[in-house]
Amino acid sequence: TRQTEDTQTDRELYIRTTIRELVIYVFFIATLCILTFGMTSSTHYYYTKVMQELFVDAQFPDTKNTFKGMTTMQDFWRFSEGPLMDGLYWETWYNQKNVSEEDLGYIYYENKLLGVPRIRQLKVRNGSCEVHPDFQEEITACYDSYAKAKEDTSPFGSENGTAWVYHTEDELDGSSHWGLLDYTYSGGGYYQDLLDTKTKSLAIIKNLKENLWLDRGTRVVLVDFTVYNANINLFCVVRLVVEFPATGGAVPSYQFRTVKLLRYVTTYDYFLMGCEVLYMLFILYYIVEEVLEIRKNKCSYFKSVWNCLDVLVILLSIVAFSFNIYRTITVDSLLGKLLDQPLTYPDFEFLGFWQMQYNNMVAIVVFFAWIKIFKYISFNRTMTQLQSTLSRCSKDIAGFAVMFFIIFLAYAQLGYLVFGTQVKDFSTFQESIFTQFRIILGDFDFHALEAANRVLGPIFFLTYVFFVFFVLLNMFLAIINDTYSEVKAEISMQKSEFEISDYIKRGYNK
Amino acid sequence: TRQTEDTQTDRELYIRTTIRELVIYVFFIATLCILTFGMTSSTHYYYTKVMQELFVDAQFPDTKNTFKGMTTMQDFWRFSEGPLMDGLYWETWYNQKNVSEEDLGYIYYENKLLGVPRIRQLKVRNGSCEVHPDFQEEITACYDSYAKAKEDTSPFGSENGTAWVYHTEDELDGSSHWGLLDYTYSGGGYYQDLLDTKTKSLAIIKNLKENLWLDRGTRVVLVDFTVYNANINLFCVVRLVVEFPATGGAVPSYQFRTVKLLRYVTTYDYFLMGCEVLYMLFILYYIVEEVLEIRKNKCSYFKSVWNCLDVLVILLSIVAFSFNIYRTITVDSLLGKLLDQPLTYPDFEFLGFWQMQYNNMVAIVVFFAWIKIFKYISFNRTMTQLQSTLSRCSKDIAGFAVMFFIIFLAYAQLGYLVFGTQVKDFSTFQESIFTQFRIILGDFDFHALEAANRVLGPIFFLTYVFFVFFVLLNMFLAIINDTYSEVKAEISMQKSEFEISDYIKRGYNK
Amino acid sequence: TRQTEDTQTDRELYIRTTIRELVIYVFFIATLCILTFGMTSSTHYYYTKVMQELFVDAQFPDTKNTFKGMTTMQDFWRFSEGPLMDGLYWETWYNQKNVSEEDLGYIYYENKLLGVPRIRQLKVRNGSCEVHPDFQEEITACYDSYAKAKEDTSPFGSENGTAWVYHTEDELDGSSHWGLLDYTYSGGGYYQDLLDTKTKSLAIIKNLKENLWLDRGTRVVLVDFTVYNANINLFCVVRLVVEFPATGGAVPSYQFRTVKLLRYVTTYDYFLMGCEVLYMLFILYYIVEEVLEIRKNKCSYFKSVWNCLDVLVILLSIVAFSFNIYRTITVDSLLGKLLDQPLTYPDFEFLGFWQMQYNNMVAIVVFFAWIKIFKYISFNRTMTQLQSTLSRCSKDIAGFAVMFFIIFLAYAQLGYLVFGTQVKDFSTFQESIFTQFRIILGDFDFHALEAANRVLGPIFFLTYVFFVFFVLLNMFLAIINDTYSEVKAEISMQKSEFEISDYIKRGYNK
Amino acid sequence: TRQTEDTQTDRELYIRTTIRELVIYVFFIATLCILTFGMTSSTHYYYTKVMQELFVDAQFPDTKNTFKGMTTMQDFWRFSEGPLMDGLYWETWYNQKNVSEEDLGYIYYENKLLGVPRIRQLKVRNGSCEVHPDFQEEITACYDSYAKAKEDTSPFGSENGTAWVYHTEDELDGSSHWGLLDYTYSGGGYYQDLLDTKTKSLAIIKNLKENLWLDRGTRVVLVDFTVYNANINLFCVVRLVVEFPATGGAVPSYQFRTVKLLRYVTTYDYFLMGCEVLYMLFILYYIVEEVLEIRKNKCSYFKSVWNCLDVLVILLSIVAFSFNIYRTITVDSLLGKLLDQPLTYPDFEFLGFWQMQYNNMVAIVVFFAWIKIFKYISFNRTMTQLQSTLSRCSKDIAGFAVMFFIIFLAYAQLGYLVFGTQVKDFSTFQESIFTQFRIILGDFDFHALEAANRVLGPIFFLTYVFFVFFVLLNMFLAIINDTYSEVKAEISMQKSEFEISDYIKRGYNK
Ligand SMILES: [Ca+2]
Repeated sequence: TRQTEDTQTDRELYIRTTIRELVIYVFFIATLCILTFGMTSSTHYYYTKVMQELFVDAQFPDTKNTFKGMTTMQDFWRFSEGPLMDGLYWETWYNQKNVSEEDLGYIYYENKLLGVPRIRQLKVRNGSCEVHPDFQEEITACYDSYAKAKEDTSPFGSENGTAWVYHTEDELDGSSHWGLLDYTYSGGGYYQDLLDTKTKSLAIIKNLKENLWLDRGTRVVLVDFTVYNANINLFCVVRLVVEFPATGGAVPSYQFRTVKLLRYVTTYDYFLMGCEVLYMLFILYYIVEEVLEIRKNKCSYFKSVWNCLDVLVILLSIVAFSFNIYRTITVDSLLGKLLDQPLTYPDFEFLGFWQMQYNNMVAIVVFFAWIKIFKYISFNRTMTQLQSTLSRCSKDIAGFAVMFFIIFLAYAQLGYLVFGTQVKDFSTFQESIFTQFRIILGDFDFHALEAANRVLGPIFFLTYVFFVFFVLLNMFLAIINDTYSEVKAEISMQKSEFEISDYIKRGYNK
Repeated sequence: TRQTEDTQTDRELYIRTTIRELVIYVFFIATLCILTFGMTSSTHYYYTKVMQELFVDAQFPDTKNTFKGMTTMQDFWRFSEGPLMDGLYWETWYNQKNVSEEDLGYIYYENKLLGVPRIRQLKVRNGSCEVHPDFQEEITACYDSYAKAKEDTSPFGSENGTAWVYHTEDELDGSSHWGLLDYTYSGGGYYQDLLDTKTKSLAIIKNLKENLWLDRGTRVVLVDFTVYNANINLFCVVRLVVEFPATGGAVPSYQFRTVKLLRYVTTYDYFLMGCEVLYMLFILYYIVEEVLEIRKNKCSYFKSVWNCLDVLVILLSIVAFSFNIYRTITVDSLLGKLLDQPLTYPDFEFLGFWQMQYNNMVAIVVFFAWIKIFKYISFNRTMTQLQSTLSRCSKDIAGFAVMFFIIFLAYAQLGYLVFGTQVKDFSTFQESIFTQFRIILGDFDFHALEAANRVLGPIFFLTYVFFVFFVLLNMFLAIINDTYSEVKAEISMQKSEFEISDYIKRGYNK
Repeated sequence: TRQTEDTQTDRELYIRTTIRELVIYVFFIATLCILTFGMTSSTHYYYTKVMQELFVDAQFPDTKNTFKGMTTMQDFWRFSEGPLMDGLYWETWYNQKNVSEEDLGYIYYENKLLGVPRIRQLKVRNGSCEVHPDFQEEITACYDSYAKAKEDTSPFGSENGTAWVYHTEDELDGSSHWGLLDYTYSGGGYYQDLLDTKTKSLAIIKNLKENLWLDRGTRVVLVDFTVYNANINLFCVVRLVVEFPATGGAVPSYQFRTVKLLRYVTTYDYFLMGCEVLYMLFILYYIVEEVLEIRKNKCSYFKSVWNCLDVLVILLSIVAFSFNIYRTITVDSLLGKLLDQPLTYPDFEFLGFWQMQYNNMVAIVVFFAWIKIFKYISFNRTMTQLQSTLSRCSKDIAGFAVMFFIIFLAYAQLGYLVFGTQVKDFSTFQESIFTQFRIILGDFDFHALEAANRVLGPIFFLTYVFFVFFVLLNMFLAIINDTYSEVKAEISMQKSEFEISDYIKRGYNK
Repeated sequence: TRQTEDTQTDRELYIRTTIRELVIYVFFIATLCILTFGMTSSTHYYYTKVMQELFVDAQFPDTKNTFKGMTTMQDFWRFSEGPLMDGLYWETWYNQKNVSEEDLGYIYYENKLLGVPRIRQLKVRNGSCEVHPDFQEEITACYDSYAKAKEDTSPFGSENGTAWVYHTEDELDGSSHWGLLDYTYSGGGYYQDLLDTKTKSLAIIKNLKENLWLDRGTRVVLVDFTVYNANINLFCVVRLVVEFPATGGAVPSYQFRTVKLLRYVTTYDYFLMGCEVLYMLFILYYIVEEVLEIRKNKCSYFKSVWNCLDVLVILLSIVAFSFNIYRTITVDSLLGKLLDQPLTYPDFEFLGFWQMQYNNMVAIVVFFAWIKIFKYISFNRTMTQLQSTLSRCSKDIAGFAVMFFIIFLAYAQLGYLVFGTQVKDFSTFQESIFTQFRIILGDFDFHALEAANRVLGPIFFLTYVFFVFFVLLNMFLAIINDTYSEVKAEISMQKSEFEISDYIKRGYNK
């Protein structure tokens, strides 16, 4: 942004421009911070927490297991008949008297269950994989791991109803789900909506269980519902997922998306709306400025890291705005529909997902906005010294990084191959990388490594710690240390330039 | 303090003065240490521990949950009817025979329950928040998060008694409470005092439960009582708090303030009293000295860090003394009242709080007193070298700190916005800051981050570790390293001044 | 490899050769990576996990203990009658209806139990150790710790059958097992094969229990079985081991070897087969090259670390290939036999063990292949600088390492002798070494040390941290730091050689 | 030792002497290592472990609590009637049939219970403390914390027997015990020996319980017994301690001393005996040498650290030997007595304690022996360089240490005073010191600090980490770094002396 004016001729003019830019920038950041801090609060966390405690930490009456600890198909039914029903339907007070008619349908007596929950499953076809010739006589059925192409779409079971007939993603107006096992499950499948009382819903679930709704082909079951808390004006979009891998067993996971879909209710909300408008104006201002600069500097514009950052911030902001508008419209139409037909399943999953993405986008915008402030604060010698140390040693660090990462990745691959089948922390290549980072910080489970391989485990650990923690990390330090000494020596020999701090002092002395 | 005499003319005189000051100071610190180490002991900790085990770790008979693990309103009643009653009333020995009349009313058979416990709740009004227009037809009741202004003050329930009628903070002579959810609850509310036997108290609690004493408006319940152990002359002021956030669910917290309110009983106590008097005299001496210095040096007095430290220590000491006197008076009057009317609730909460503050103040005074010792111990070259390294690089470190904290806070804000709704360690901005410090030391939960956001979680973690742990921390090290080399080089070139150690040697040789 | 051609005369020719070699090498590494990443996947981990959850984490019905938590002989019978039976035989669906005849024999309804499980025990003779004269009258029986020579080989019990008669390792065609207690158990012993239904197997186990099959002489019990999952074409070779040390009590351990014994089923498998062939060709190429070099350079060949690495990689590859061929043959014959006689015990243990070794060998080959890449990438100054820092300070580091390890091992021995009888982490000398490494990284249990010895524990910990973490580790850093500064200073004074990067640039400019 | 001969005249002679000394020393260390590694093995650990699992980890039948988790007096009775009886008396096999007469009395069927267990308690007098005047009317009984002088020595209860009458330490031939609460309990008290069958012992315990053997005055209960495992020739001296602090509640602790009191049974034992003799001879040799040196050098002898180390090693060795002889005699007499009267309580506690001290002494001797090896290995330049770095910077480090420890201890005191009543890790001053060391390494519980004080907790943590981990630790590093550079520069300028390595080379070339 600095390049729009021809400031190089006059140092003082240059500084004055910088200060003006800085002041505008400070206002911009302030707006952003108010906006983002207004966007969230610890209430969000507590809402997520109490909902999680209710559904994923509640114990099954008989086995004392929980949703989180599920390991078999039977556990899913135990969960459905126990904690799920108790969590969804609060029909009595703690003194065992019934809740009044109008207070029915509130979880924790506070959170309105919107519409009804939906249980949905996806299956794969029998014969979706090839059995090795040696076993073909013995083993006749084969159900592969999940893949869209291998989905079972034929009706099954003797019963009728949505639970036994396949529905495509379009029919359900659904969206796909990225599971813990790294498959992307489609939005279709066999589904069953529950009803508005515990007795009725429990009967539905017992019926499904009795007729073996889940069988060997089942690869995932999803339970979806949404609650709304009017006290704090927050939605919690809940998705409980149980994946049944082709290995047998069950792998539970869950999403509790606490989002503020109805944004403007209280006075404070309208104040935030004001901030959003201000933010939009700032973005407009920066768009104009950057466009002018791009016109002037052409390709060379993109050579500066700061300019790229500017463009990134602007683009993310625009996407966020668009979503903001889209969200406001969709929520209204969805709620309208729901309030008309209270016993249908309302799909807030998609909206919840995008609201989360919106929050993340804004968070990243703020992060980069803070980083960009470094552009302006090279106003005294110490700062310059640190920044030039960083930029000076960046080439050495890059060279070092190549070396570091070859060794690091070689270890990651070794760890993945040797311990991957036994230790969770090395079960995928990415996990291996994260785990090795964590080892450097001191967060690891040595005993798991040792149990996985009593010989290679300790060797791996000791040599890794020696080469990476002792040698490479210290070499990294040596690079920075050395460069700092050099830069400091050079700078102390330079004549000081006329700096912002001088300008400020002079202004102060006038 | 050094400036009161004109010592600059003669180096030897200066050193003699310093030594005299140092000797006095050593006596001052010794007094303080005896005082503070006499103030506490591991008995305090064990007292807190056994009381906590009794109330917050005891399992409910049916669900095996504990106070700490509470999640619903029903859990509160389970607690009240189970561990609370068992913990407060010890009416039988372990062989199931009754405790003799005069041994009744002792927890663990040792700790006298002072007066009776009090259960108090605070509610918010229905309609204290606005429901979004879309839902206004559906949702008619709305209970906001707690705020003093939104408190419900009208009587409720069909029953009579203090439990159903609001009492103001003044009526109850209570004090406000800072909850875990960051609300400051007022000292008023609806309260119920228990009685002196288990049977009677249990009946009271069952009655409250039966009549739905806690309802949707309830935002917090506090259980207060105080026990006194004559064996070790300690009070334990217990407050069990269950907050019911507007999200539903329950958030338990607790305070066990183990304090010595009756300070002078044994001979050792009177010895400590002597130390306190000595301490007071020292403070008087220092007050005089500092006043003289301030008169002499005017504003320039406050330019020295050591002088500011002096003033701080003196001010804190004065406040502590005042409290000490106030405490002695209040405890006596409170106990007198209590012993007259044994079935009332005695409010030790306020006293316990201030006794804690007193302890903290004294602790801080001792801490600063220790730090001030550095003023005197620059008596040899190594020490000077280290201190001048610190003061020399303080400017660079300050510059670095600005840079460090911009990046650090940018990460904290990012973490708060992206993970705040899911991960406890990022649920508030302060927690994010603490968590990031803990990551540097190696105490973190990577899997929670990964579960909260499978893409941004690892990216956040890896870049944070790289930039902050690898780059910035090492640059910090480089600054200190470089400055130390410089200072050492300079000092080794200086001619040594006449130092304290020389003075001591000479005195020794005479 | 570089030495085969006389390249020293012409720098440019040398670089061209290097680039050619590098390109070949990159293809070699790419092949290896595809091969190894195709070899494993997170499915392996999940298979191991669900099988472990089923057998070692399942609770016994009465004591709620698990296989992992076993402490007595009785626990073994509790496990055998409970989780083992429930885990092996899935004869009903979750709605309690029987599984159809053809679906019997599948664990989790998915994993075919191959043949029948085998339970085997090893005993030592009574009188295998000497009782001290003072006790010889009192104590008449003495069963030593396990050793091959002390095995009891006589029949016992009143019953007949394989369970009561000793079989040698040859008769059973078994292999030895390295236990957790560091004994190597022979492959023979008293064994009992189970049958194909729960009722029959449970009867067998109850019979063994009733007749005291396990007695004071029993030193280990091994439960072996293998399951095959056709969906994902993986075998899981399970071995559950309970060792009964001479001290009394029980020490459980387990192995779940998830291996792909039938390698070529899907199209992707055949693609990997292609890679394996390619890999074999590469190895052939390198064998020829290295043989030529060895002929030319004789003994001096082995002076280069890179050449030794080459030889190592080639040797490991050859061993891996040989196994690959052997495995393919053995599995087929074993499966053939098994499918003929479904009610026998098939010994996959040996095959599983070697498949694991094969995987590990390949993993190590890839690791070294990555490390060798450093031979080629000294193409720019930064890289050279880092590598020469490492090689320059290697002598200093070696000297330092001697010093470091004397102190380190002295501490390890001290820790082993003082805490070894109490703390698991110091129970053997190796564990002490690992533990001390972990202390440096911040993963330790101070309270265990303190509990083991209230005086020496803290002293050991504090002095260790001070000398090793504070002093020695920082000295290590000083060595690297100093060497780096030196090397950098030297290199910056050298004239740059004609480097690969220049060659590339020139080629680019043409 | 080097100074006994006048070696300074001839460098070569000096080196030859050094080598001769070194060779002798290597033999000395080898002997020591064989000795100490023969002294212990992982069997010791497993013995400790299985015994602990049996007594301190076993669950009570009703509350599922364990010995470790005890909190009340009633828990002690639950433990005594449950896990203690089940652990001590193994009267049935796992198939519920009775164990044969001669196999009775073996824990885990393997470990002979020597004699009978003893339960002993210590009480304090009523009125052993002063009640504050305000409470004297209300509270009539007062039982102070334990102190030898406050012990209750009068008989109590209506029953007769040892359990109700006080016995002095001399009468019981007992020894004092250092409890977890830091009191040293005397060896006397009220005791009750159990009997040889479960039924009889249980009756005794039930009787004690029924008659309120434990009351408000009880301060500690100790359960003592010893088991002997003939298989591995090890004794396990067990002491289970439950302290009842004056605060109420119960604090359990335990000692399992696994010791080899009968040392010479197997051939290997006699080999170790040979090593011990050899060790004794070495010590004799060194005594002679050191005495000669002391005569020659007088006081200046003690100025060398190495000489002090020599003296320390010799003294510790002599003490260890003396004990070794004493132990052999005592064990024999004790066992003789025990075998004559099998139903008495044999006091192995004292012997177990000293055997532990013996092991520790030997361990420390070996540790110092290893450290002394540095005296001999300054044979090449790198080594000299490192050692002179250490000795050079030792003065700076000492100066730094003063500074470091003032700040460190100021923080420790602050932490102790502010968090001591709430957090276990700060409950005593020593614990605070250890905790702060652990924070540096990354092992801490931030949430406990935060819960103890929401304001001072985080401030304490953040400033501590900043000043100590960031600033002081890095300054430490700077000192070592700087000194190393200096030393290296100096050494590289010196002419190399004729060194051991040269001598070796020359000898090799001859
Ligand atoms: Ca760490």
